[in-house]
Amino acid sequence: MRMISPIIFTISLLLSSACHAAVQDFCVADLTAPQSLVGYPCKKPETVTVNDFVYSGLGVAGNTSKLKVAVTWVTVPEFPALNGLGISLARADLAVGGVFPIHTHPRATEAIIVLEGKVTAGFISSANTVYYKTLKQGDAMIFPQGLPHFVVNAGATPVQVFVSFSSASPGLQVLDYALFSNDFPSELEAATTFLDIPQIKKLKAFFGGTG
Amino acid sequence: MRMISPIIFTISLLLSSACHAAVQDFCVADLTAPQSLVGYPCKKPETVTVNDFVYSGLGVAGNTSKLKVAVTWVTVPEFPALNGLGISLARADLAVGGVFPIHTHPRATEAIIVLEGKVTAGFISSANTVYYKTLKQGDAMIFPQGLPHFVVNAGATPVQVFVSFSSASPGLQVLDYALFSNDFPSELEAATTFLDIPQIKKLKAFFGGTG
Amino acid sequence: MRMISPIIFTISLLLSSACHAAVQDFCVADLTAPQSLVGYPCKKPETVTVNDFVYSGLGVAGNTSKLKVAVTWVTVPEFPALNGLGISLARADLAVGGVFPIHTHPRATEAIIVLEGKVTAGFISSANTVYYKTLKQGDAMIFPQGLPHFVVNAGATPVQVFVSFSSASPGLQVLDYALFSNDFPSELEAATTFLDIPQIKKLKAFFGGTG
Amino acid sequence: MRMISPIIFTISLLLSSACHAAVQDFCVADLTAPQSLVGYPCKKPETVTVNDFVYSGLGVAGNTSKLKVAVTWVTVPEFPALNGLGISLARADLAVGGVFPIHTHPRATEAIIVLEGKVTAGFISSANTVYYKTLKQGDAMIFPQGLPHFVVNAGATPVQVFVSFSSASPGLQVLDYALFSNDFPSELEAATTFLDIPQIKKLKAFFGGTG
Amino acid sequence: MRMISPIIFTISLLLSSACHAAVQDFCVADLTAPQSLVGYPCKKPETVTVNDFVYSGLGVAGNTSKLKVAVTWVTVPEFPALNGLGISLARADLAVGGVFPIHTHPRATEAIIVLEGKVTAGFISSANTVYYKTLKQGDAMIFPQGLPHFVVNAGATPVQVFVSFSSASPGLQVLDYALFSNDFPSELEAATTFLDIPQIKKLKAFFGGTG
Amino acid sequence: MRMISPIIFTISLLLSSACHAAVQDFCVADLTAPQSLVGYPCKKPETVTVNDFVYSGLGVAGNTSKLKVAVTWVTVPEFPALNGLGISLARADLAVGGVFPIHTHPRATEAIIVLEGKVTAGFISSANTVYYKTLKQGDAMIFPQGLPHFVVNAGATPVQVFVSFSSASPGLQVLDYALFSNDFPSELEAATTFLDIPQIKKLKAFFGGTG
Repeated sequence: MRMISPIIFTISLLLSSACHAAVQDFCVADLTAPQSLVGYPCKKPETVTVNDFVYSGLGVAGNTSKLKVAVTWVTVPEFPALNGLGISLARADLAVGGVFPIHTHPRATEAIIVLEGKVTAGFISSANTVYYKTLKQGDAMIFPQGLPHFVVNAGATPVQVFVSFSSASPGLQVLDYALFSNDFPSELEAATTFLDIPQIKKLKAFFGGTG
Repeated sequence: MRMISPIIFTISLLLSSACHAAVQDFCVADLTAPQSLVGYPCKKPETVTVNDFVYSGLGVAGNTSKLKVAVTWVTVPEFPALNGLGISLARADLAVGGVFPIHTHPRATEAIIVLEGKVTAGFISSANTVYYKTLKQGDAMIFPQGLPHFVVNAGATPVQVFVSFSSASPGLQVLDYALFSNDFPSELEAATTFLDIPQIKKLKAFFGGTG
Repeated sequence: MRMISPIIFTISLLLSSACHAAVQDFCVADLTAPQSLVGYPCKKPETVTVNDFVYSGLGVAGNTSKLKVAVTWVTVPEFPALNGLGISLARADLAVGGVFPIHTHPRATEAIIVLEGKVTAGFISSANTVYYKTLKQGDAMIFPQGLPHFVVNAGATPVQVFVSFSSASPGLQVLDYALFSNDFPSELEAATTFLDIPQIKKLKAFFGGTG
Repeated sequence: MRMISPIIFTISLLLSSACHAAVQDFCVADLTAPQSLVGYPCKKPETVTVNDFVYSGLGVAGNTSKLKVAVTWVTVPEFPALNGLGISLARADLAVGGVFPIHTHPRATEAIIVLEGKVTAGFISSANTVYYKTLKQGDAMIFPQGLPHFVVNAGATPVQVFVSFSSASPGLQVLDYALFSNDFPSELEAATTFLDIPQIKKLKAFFGGTG
Repeated sequence: MRMISPIIFTISLLLSSACHAAVQDFCVADLTAPQSLVGYPCKKPETVTVNDFVYSGLGVAGNTSKLKVAVTWVTVPEFPALNGLGISLARADLAVGGVFPIHTHPRATEAIIVLEGKVTAGFISSANTVYYKTLKQGDAMIFPQGLPHFVVNAGATPVQVFVSFSSASPGLQVLDYALFSNDFPSELEAATTFLDIPQIKKLKAFFGGTG
Repeated sequence: MRMISPIIFTISLLLSSACHAAVQDFCVADLTAPQSLVGYPCKKPETVTVNDFVYSGLGVAGNTSKLKVAVTWVTVPEFPALNGLGISLARADLAVGGVFPIHTHPRATEAIIVLEGKVTAGFISSANTVYYKTLKQGDAMIFPQGLPHFVVNAGATPVQVFVSFSSASPGLQVLDYALFSNDFPSELEAATTFLDIPQIKKLKAFFGGTG
């Protein structure tokens, strides 16, 4: 080793290193290109800077003045460095009385941690068991992939929840929007949900659906 | 090559072949052993016969006399050879007026083919679009993984549908059972579904739920 | 909850839902774009309709008048909605005396169900065991991924078989075409198959091969 | 549909649902059983309660009085419900002057969010670029899978960081422990790291290594 | 940093490191336990030594005196450290006139490098193209996963080939053994291979088959 | 079977075979197109020849006259047929006194076989155990994915080592380049490595780093 010329060593090995490994350490999404089955194409590595790996803004609460709830999503569209890395984030704020109604993430397990306040959170398994509990500051809970779940402010103060997902593209399907915000014919919906037609029509009026 | 002694060749190569590859061609489930994250342990290959790879009984309609619908499942518990092979099957029968209400398979895409009769089938995407159509004999339809979907007999004759899934363990969650056949407290359910409490209580009475 | 303005709630949540999840629920293949390692790029979701998810034509038998067998493939080229969903379909018809000779699907397990008639079907494991059986209407059989298998009409009436695969791109390699429909030099082929050269030349004449 | 007897419907469908899907929604680790290549075997689903899905204790700072840093791990050993779900968590506390030295997680991407205080955090790519930045409260940063990274308290107040990983089993390899806390012979270590032997011996004395 | 007590730091961090990461760095197979869908259970890490990671014996040619060819397999049964690591090895020796007849590895791509001598090697694609070439010392060739391939000594001197596979369990199916070393009925075999029955019977006599 | 017209059979089946399976047998990289998360797009199959699957040049030692070590990489850039096939190769030469210093391959397990000479090789586990041994000609050793490892010529003659990886894109990160060949500020580096600043500055001078 003492006899090696480190400078030459450096140059030659660096070249091979850069060539063989750099691109695939990360693949910051080029959001202007079409999405494939596995995500977005990569920005050229030489244009990537540390700022691609940093997301600012989770320190500020979302605006809960209208809906009592707000989500700040940090997934690939907001934070392209997540592309292909199997993780994404969010911040959820719930004013007093705020509710995140039943929804699913078809492609990710979700973990929440309560940073402020008190929530009642739960999910429903395929065996139709409802697992729910009231969580206080510092508690974490898991919602396994694809199962319907909910989070409700269970206290008299605002709630701040930090969320992480096991996918850069978790997906989101809110039950009420799936059922009541589209043109699903009410007769067919009644037949396939066992809900009464007046209930369906009332919620369609609320959620902007027709039919 | 002409000089090779094929018998010796046979014996020596067969031994290595059996050793290196046989077990992993298939892994017929040993249903008496505990299930792991990826399925069941394998039956010993020397106890496997052709009968492990054949399932009989899809030629007979399920009993639709009580519910108007019946499913004959052919997944790992019924057909252990499917273990680890990424596929499973079912036969669905619908009497006149029969309905498979909205449900999801969290771990599989489903393909159906209509063998007899006429159905209206559909699914709801994460963007809350309802894609539905009336299908006749010979039509096939796809329900992408994890999305809520339904099948309704749309004709005046019995329906026979053949089903295949992209997983040996597709899972099943029926919306009405998830919401109305358990002890989900009605107040919390109303808050997280926007359904009216009388509607919830009515369906709980139907589907055997409490709370 | 009663105080929420659902219309505003709808609009804001729908936007985030569409943004975060819609594309990846499905990826209907754009067959005009180049195929990648994992399939085709996706058609723009806004151009997708229910007709993309429905395939018609499996109700009609293929033409068996010339070869005694016919396959109607329903894979990505015929049904682009299958792209990325891990499943594909086919219908196989066999006239009396029809034979599907030994072939493999390198990338999929195959499940068959006999809808009409009687077949003898089998596969050969890596341990060189032949698992074969005569199947009647309503019987299903599995051919594990990558193993050579065959289906023969074993009765005096036409056969209809419904087929599903555990991949949208199962692949197909027919033994006779691999050996006898190309320019594989006969001397080299004899050395590597132990077949006699006259047998090779006879089948090359049949299957259009040379050399 | 109006004629269906929902109670019978419930019972029959529930049975099939429980049979086909329940186990694989989640697989709460049985930590007393041996770990396989893909994680632990599952606890019997009937013994699982909501408490399996809730972890308490992230609301309390770790003890930084001795090392100036503390980690509260929430991975499978501490929170067995994470088994197989592709996600894990941690809380990191750094007193003033606290440092998490260079380390890697061989099996996970890491996301951090700064909840209190100010840190300098960074990682080194395979192309040997150091991407580092000073982060304030509310900032998030990503460390792509397998790359060496570090976090340093960059302010005059204690730091609280919330961490999530893209795996239930991220792994951890701290550079100084890998190099200086074992019996790696110093001559061989000098030859393969280019570090001077006195430097190696000094750090081995610190970190408990020999040789 | 200068104020930290490194010894205490060492002990506390080492404990967490060992707990969180050690087992899954590797999973040396416990060959006495039953194999699962994904391989063997792991030996206890504390019983693993450097000798588990070293395999000796590839420096010696296999015995080609009887068959003109010999394979020294280095897969999980011979080298349990490969379990779960996605790679395996072999050494192939071919005397003058030696032939590895057409075979497939259903679960791995194979790479060969010619260390001594000259071979003709090739594979047949699903499109039935034969890709073959004569390779000299220092040449490497790839046989993509699942495709039939062969290697023939093409020179007047012994051949040594080093082999690596993209799986710890590549599998092996030799065409002649699949067709001629079992009890596959000759009539059925003729119908499904288009080979003449005398050819089948002749090779069954060679390869030990019946029927 | 005797009545089939094989020529027509050939043509019709060949067309379906080519359509359904050919592209995905292999995906020879089109290096001029942008790399995606899973590798490069495929060259058109009709332009692929046997020469795409053969790499020549591993029979010649790399030039060790300056650094005492040399690597001949055979990964996707040098051998585009490897794209997507999960394997890559290399040849390593070490003159007397040659050292491959500690490095990692973040995305692959490495297997080495000593073809000539004698080496001392080892790796460090996440539990901080150093597993090392002196290997002679014919010995193979495994370095599990992501763990730091090294190879040193331990004899008085040149060493030739053949290397295979469990990925077409193994990646490479050399410890000394990661630490000493970039602009990592020395103060921050000292704080996060516990190395002394003079040691850091000395190695930065050697390896071309600044700061």
